Amino acid sequence: MSLPSAPLPPPEDLLIDLRSGALRAATPLPPLPNRTLLLSLDDIEEGAHGLTAAAGTLLVVCERGVRSTLAARLLRAEGLNASAYEGGVPALLAAWEHKP
Amino acid sequence: MSLPSAPLPPPEDLLIDLRSGALRAATPLPPLPNRTLLLSLDDIEEGAHGLTAAAGTLLVVCERGVRSTLAARLLRAEGLNASAYEGGVPALLAAWEHKP
Repeated sequence: MSLPSAPLPPPEDLLIDLRSGALRAATPLPPLPNRTLLLSLDDIEEGAHGLTAAAGTLLVVCERGVRSTLAARLLRAEGLNASAYEGGVPALLAAWEHKP
Repeated sequence: MSLPSAPLPPPEDLLIDLRSGALRAATPLPPLPNRTLLLSLDDIEEGAHGLTAAAGTLLVVCERGVRSTLAARLLRAEGLNASAYEGGVPALLAAWEHKP
């Protein structure tokens, strides 16, 4: 019996991928319909993300879910609706594999 | 004498890549420092891009520069500072190859 995988993100959420180009090339995201923003934790820490509430619900993902948790906290501190995808890209790939 | 290539985008510009996941996987963008937003022309036509002036200068890219020109026009019509990267991804890759 495999572990229940996390649900896939709602398609209208803006997915934010914090991973470096090299990690993204090595492990591409699944072909989700979501808009996806590629930027670094530095961009967020320096307030250079350019995001506003108009971007909608933000779902942050990284290699394991650690930096994305910090990034989501920083974005929430700016009043944005942000959360981290638990377990990061590996969990997202598992959710894609086990999608109904 | 090779054709002078277009300049690389300023690093603070938000690069918008309209290409499908398959095209992006087949021809990855060069490792530019820019924030990069992956979305479709439909997202822009339907006003579901979530972009505001806070996102800064927008530079749209696609396979050849045709759809990006339309996308940039639509975004400008919404008052956003958007332009298309002439010649699309091939020109961007050439600019990266010939960067000083």
